[in-house]
Amino acid sequence: MSLDLVLGVDVGGTAIKAGAVDRRGRMVAKREVATPPGGPRAVVARVAEVAADLQREAGRARAVGVGWPTPLDPERGVVLFDNKLGSAGVNVAGLVSRATGRPACIENDANAAALAEYLYGAAKGAGSVVLLTLGTGVGGGIVLGGEVWHGRDGAAGEVGHVKVHPGGRRCLFCGRRGCLEAYAGAQAILKRYRGAGNKADGMKDVVDAARRGERLAVTIVSEMAEMIGMAVADLANVLNPEIVVIGGGVARAGEILFGPIRAAVEREALPNVSKGLRIVPAKLGNDAGLLGAAGCAWRRFGTSASSRTLTTASRRSRIASSS
Amino acid sequence: MSLDLVLGVDVGGTAIKAGAVDRRGRMVAKREVATPPGGPRAVVARVAEVAADLQREAGRARAVGVGWPTPLDPERGVVLFDNKLGSAGVNVAGLVSRATGRPACIENDANAAALAEYLYGAAKGAGSVVLLTLGTGVGGGIVLGGEVWHGRDGAAGEVGHVKVHPGGRRCLFCGRRGCLEAYAGAQAILKRYRGAGNKADGMKDVVDAARRGERLAVTIVSEMAEMIGMAVADLANVLNPEIVVIGGGVARAGEILFGPIRAAVEREALPNVSKGLRIVPAKLGNDAGLLGAAGCAWRRFGTSASSRTLTTASRRSRIASSS
Repeated sequence: MSLDLVLGVDVGGTAIKAGAVDRRGRMVAKREVATPPGGPRAVVARVAEVAADLQREAGRARAVGVGWPTPLDPERGVVLFDNKLGSAGVNVAGLVSRATGRPACIENDANAAALAEYLYGAAKGAGSVVLLTLGTGVGGGIVLGGEVWHGRDGAAGEVGHVKVHPGGRRCLFCGRRGCLEAYAGAQAILKRYRGAGNKADGMKDVVDAARRGERLAVTIVSEMAEMIGMAVADLANVLNPEIVVIGGGVARAGEILFGPIRAAVEREALPNVSKGLRIVPAKLGNDAGLLGAAGCAWRRFGTSASSRTLTTASRRSRIASSS
Repeated sequence: MSLDLVLGVDVGGTAIKAGAVDRRGRMVAKREVATPPGGPRAVVARVAEVAADLQREAGRARAVGVGWPTPLDPERGVVLFDNKLGSAGVNVAGLVSRATGRPACIENDANAAALAEYLYGAAKGAGSVVLLTLGTGVGGGIVLGGEVWHGRDGAAGEVGHVKVHPGGRRCLFCGRRGCLEAYAGAQAILKRYRGAGNKADGMKDVVDAARRGERLAVTIVSEMAEMIGMAVADLANVLNPEIVVIGGGVARAGEILFGPIRAAVEREALPNVSKGLRIVPAKLGNDAGLLGAAGCAWRRFGTSASSRTLTTASRRSRIASSS
């Protein structure tokens, strides 16, 4: 007997990650391929190849959920704004559905990661979650009352551009001064660190140098934690969430980062807001995006044998209501 | 024939405002009395007197909604945190219901004001609303997808304590530096303005002095607008709302305030977030709190003749589902 599965796909600027995922968020097969040039149709064609390949291994999937790196309207499946893949206005969900022969939905990649941590990871069972992802830039997603909050244009959760130091360092992404991303994004940090004549392959090297007490690295990591703390304090005052999850490779640095973040939040947020607020590292690592995309597919297309009783009852009540 | 009405009550530190309000948010009778000393039971007793008085004039009310100036749990009707009226842990909704003989609910006063602007005022029909109220301090409320967002401890919407100038002026309320309230709350502004030897009865005098070009007043009003703009930009990046409503007496100052606020938001928020974001003055003035409290009562207890068809259908389907 084959497993009950969906496919989760995480489309990034350089790679497409995809997996076959069961209802509890367990991945039974995985693929990773390069993101092809040629715009959204080329990307969708590659997604369909990977989907076929995964289904040959894991069995027929019920549906496909795709994480896409742009603001989008998940209800209509349409991309709203795109300066990466040129997909603005494109019904990506429709293209994926036609190309794979399966029902499909799309979700912004950062929102998908937040949903994954809520459904399967560090924020499981929490009523409200703010995810910050520390990568090249700083992204984020918000889950309130169990639902991703998308905002008017699918652009909610841009925590990387909260101003933590107005008039401060210039943001490499948006050009404004004092964005969190200018202090906590790897691109900004590595530019600063290397600019002073230091070598670093990635954030891990900067964090290791800070652990050794190297002066600039200590300054950079302290500022990073302080500024994340400022942003989290603002988010906590505004949203009063149950949990803040911090993801991205550098979140594995542990207490050198989380200690000062928690201290800054305690100092800067209102006491009744910071008290009891959990601030924890993400659990799902690089799989968060595809697991969240799978989670979207489960939520939208997941009616199954196990929920047949409910389905029958609600079908019956629909008939009764219309009679 | 008597009107179909609820009572909306806005309990503040100094005054209790109450009104009889119809389903469309029209107030047909109104009262204002002093908030008595003696804690929540004394306040509730006064609310019950006003409720009886209003019903003598306007006719029997279906329910009572109360705006209360603390974080609270609207589902249970219980106050969560209170350094004003000493009501922490008290089931205020239960007390009001017993004292008035009507079903009752409670909502935080700032959240009630946000709900009122959404239901009946400047944000009517918007999918997502952030309200900032510029009073003695700076309060706020958030309505997402038509529902007030309360947060984990009923403390969401504390926009007055978003850090707009870290290390800046000290907040008179929370003691931290750089809160929006330190730049946009009347108490902070009047202290600063009077501290320099100027006379002002209220914010209107400071705004008038700025219009005349008086130097300190111009600085204060410019900083106020700039800092509100910074906070709104952060809120917009995080929540991507459809509309930001700015209330409180000073919001009537018009373009001297809203012009620079909009300019700062356009400068500081991401372009796809600020584009199309409406930033408008509140419409309901001092009645927002009581109208929002009435709105809560309508939402919770407002099943009526006009929705009988729907009710019958859903009752029928409930029977069908359980059979």
